Amino acid sequence: MFTYPVSDKAQKSLYVQLYEYIKQDITGGKLKKNEKLPSKRAAAKNLGISVITVENAYAALQSEGYIYSLPKKGFYVSEISKLYHSESPAPAQSAFSLPAPARYRYDFSSNGVAPENFPFSVWAKLMRETFQNAASGLLTPPPTGGINPLKTALCRHLKAFRGMEVSPAQIIIGAGTEYLYSLIIQLLGGNKRFAVQNPGYAKIAKIYKSVGIETVFIPEDRAGIDVNALSRSGADVAHISPAHAYPSGIVMHASRRNEVLNWASESERRYIIEDDYDSEFRLSGRPLPTLYSLDKTSKVIYVNTFTKSLSPSVRIAYMVLPPGLVETFYRKLGFYSSTVSAFEQYTLAKFIDEGYFEKHINRMRNYYKKIRNLMLDEIRHSALAARSEVAEQEAGLHFLLKLKTEKSDAVLKEKAAKRGLHLSFLSEFYLENAAGAPSHTIVVNYSTLKKEEIADAVAILCDILK
Amino acid sequence: MFTYPVSDKAQKSLYVQLYEYIKQDITGGKLKKNEKLPSKRAAAKNLGISVITVENAYAALQSEGYIYSLPKKGFYVSEISKLYHSESPAPAQSAFSLPAPARYRYDFSSNGVAPENFPFSVWAKLMRETFQNAASGLLTPPPTGGINPLKTALCRHLKAFRGMEVSPAQIIIGAGTEYLYSLIIQLLGGNKRFAVQNPGYAKIAKIYKSVGIETVFIPEDRAGIDVNALSRSGADVAHISPAHAYPSGIVMHASRRNEVLNWASESERRYIIEDDYDSEFRLSGRPLPTLYSLDKTSKVIYVNTFTKSLSPSVRIAYMVLPPGLVETFYRKLGFYSSTVSAFEQYTLAKFIDEGYFEKHINRMRNYYKKIRNLMLDEIRHSALAARSEVAEQEAGLHFLLKLKTEKSDAVLKEKAAKRGLHLSFLSEFYLENAAGAPSHTIVVNYSTLKKEEIADAVAILCDILK
Repeated sequence: MFTYPVSDKAQKSLYVQLYEYIKQDITGGKLKKNEKLPSKRAAAKNLGISVITVENAYAALQSEGYIYSLPKKGFYVSEISKLYHSESPAPAQSAFSLPAPARYRYDFSSNGVAPENFPFSVWAKLMRETFQNAASGLLTPPPTGGINPLKTALCRHLKAFRGMEVSPAQIIIGAGTEYLYSLIIQLLGGNKRFAVQNPGYAKIAKIYKSVGIETVFIPEDRAGIDVNALSRSGADVAHISPAHAYPSGIVMHASRRNEVLNWASESERRYIIEDDYDSEFRLSGRPLPTLYSLDKTSKVIYVNTFTKSLSPSVRIAYMVLPPGLVETFYRKLGFYSSTVSAFEQYTLAKFIDEGYFEKHINRMRNYYKKIRNLMLDEIRHSALAARSEVAEQEAGLHFLLKLKTEKSDAVLKEKAAKRGLHLSFLSEFYLENAAGAPSHTIVVNYSTLKKEEIADAVAILCDILK
Repeated sequence: MFTYPVSDKAQKSLYVQLYEYIKQDITGGKLKKNEKLPSKRAAAKNLGISVITVENAYAALQSEGYIYSLPKKGFYVSEISKLYHSESPAPAQSAFSLPAPARYRYDFSSNGVAPENFPFSVWAKLMRETFQNAASGLLTPPPTGGINPLKTALCRHLKAFRGMEVSPAQIIIGAGTEYLYSLIIQLLGGNKRFAVQNPGYAKIAKIYKSVGIETVFIPEDRAGIDVNALSRSGADVAHISPAHAYPSGIVMHASRRNEVLNWASESERRYIIEDDYDSEFRLSGRPLPTLYSLDKTSKVIYVNTFTKSLSPSVRIAYMVLPPGLVETFYRKLGFYSSTVSAFEQYTLAKFIDEGYFEKHINRMRNYYKKIRNLMLDEIRHSALAARSEVAEQEAGLHFLLKLKTEKSDAVLKEKAAKRGLHLSFLSEFYLENAAGAPSHTIVVNYSTLKKEEIADAVAILCDILK
């Protein structure tokens, strides 16, 4: 008979105490395999507790398989195979701790945004309205491709700002471009070879490689990606940024656009991913037409994000499928849940529809233009003027600064880091043939730099040449 | 010399008009390859516009590759290879339109939540506080694994509610469990064979198959997944829900837990994904210890989500990596961006820290318990009492209703659908060996059913047996 010291003064409920005592005796071997437990009534009487408490404890033990019941006979101890874990507590804490991110005073390698410019109060207001008005749509899972109001808002936006004629069914909302790439791979089939630009953004190739996709690197010239090299590479899918390649800033020429579209149309297996990242921030000249709008054979998947145009804390990106891929998408991948919070989807839809996004983009474009001009001015009036050359200053939110120096990129980088300035060099973006990379060329991402910091940052650049 | 009718009365700016006229003449063949354009000054004079306007138009044409310049000579028409697209507008609208989701009065197949219970006002308040207080953290991209306050809040939650000892570095926040599965595949390597339970949730297998993972189905008995079958299958990774399998509701027995942990420890390649979905809503008995807490050999990856415990519109899930996989994760996948909005991560951290999540779970557990009991009562007092049997009613937010009837599942389903009731049958969850599936067994997800709808829904169930 049980003689456990269960007590209604203990922190745990009576049935949990009893459950734990019995479990301990089973795993500890005190109660043997197939041993009969006392009847509920007998145990209750003996322990001075209610029958229902014993019943609950037995039920818990039974549902976890510690005991079994035989109809009209009672409860018996199960056979527990050799216990897996020792009773001593294991070191459950992970010994690994994440390295703290390095802190710099100025970071030219960062693709952040200017912190003070996000319209928090507007966003908070629209979010509140969303809670008040969209409550019924807020408690069902958002559909695979995203909520309709946001897809419709994006269609209008793409028509007004990128001249694209798109229907809402073609739009797929996702939690960042990286997630969308993984959907594209599944959509097109994993047996394809993907091409990325060299120099380029290392992360894109990393993502493809991480999911087991064969990836090739294609060089570019002044007119854009080298389409002959693309053809020779045997690639099926070309991931490119025609509006401006990063970090080279090269805008794809009109004839090259035709060439790459022709390349895609030559085989059923071929597709183009048009990564239009940052195109909102082309600071001079008119916005260029997208490859998507030139395409007549349903070969271009257009991808863009709100990470930089709005805020890196809002993880919302979207893609526009060519008409010929929409049905395939839903047939193959329509089972996926949306990855973006419905709250933020509704809020962003309002933000676009009510003109706030356009206003924000215009304000930010002017803001960045001012920072860029102040910075170029500062460079022109510094010792750098004679020892450097600026290139691609129209290319989104960065420009290239080619230094005249004999020092290696590594030395320059280290000297800058010691002064609190984080630099990245064009050579670092060569994913292949790094030996052929132009050296001494800094990729200057100025978007997180404040007006009052410009003089100091440029002074550091001057100093590292000494 | 140009004679374009540019006008400052037109909607488009002068330079855009000029740009478009020249571009049209180049693509239309009026301006020939290598033809020299008029000098900027001459064109300006002729068209009655400023030199800077011509300069802007030429710059745009040059950056897009329509013209090229020779130093000190001027601008010339580029060779544009055969134009890819016809000038006639193509049908850009997608002909495919998404099928509208079927509407039912009652949906027993849905895994939604009770709409009226999300604490919107609290969430809105915490979101507002987030905007006010966390502004500096809100404009840098959230780190790969998620923001620290949320990871820390989850550690405390897991300790209090699941008895798990976890450090923040082990936690990875992601936009839904489906996204986390894709990270797990990349973490463990794509050359592994994954096992899922049969019957089971079809989506999990679909995801694995969609990314090219070989997937096998493992049967279960009353004690949980059949570990002998698992061994024979050659699987490397077992995706299971020990707290309760869906839809069978089976709770994995203690000895079976040891067996599956032993299975994992037998090979370096082997891992267990413990999908703890819905464990918050175990409506009776005490919560079961997780496999994760029993594991002493760093083999269990624990996964859970806020989709059902909070709201399906909040797309936040998390996984707990075993200590031995944390460093590997950051080495292999640390380049990924977080997929969850920083706004919502901070808000959820507050929601947990300030006790709202616990309160919400308790309130919802009581709410669902009431609905379940009312429903079981209604069934007991209806014509169903004699013609059905209820099973697994402790298994999260569904129970099984086995009907005594000769009608096929398809006929029952159709009869119910005609009356506005969407049913899913246990047989539909057999991903393999469907012939061996028990028939006439409805998986009753009651979580979206309202109190006042219960009588009507049960009446329909009675009617379909007629």
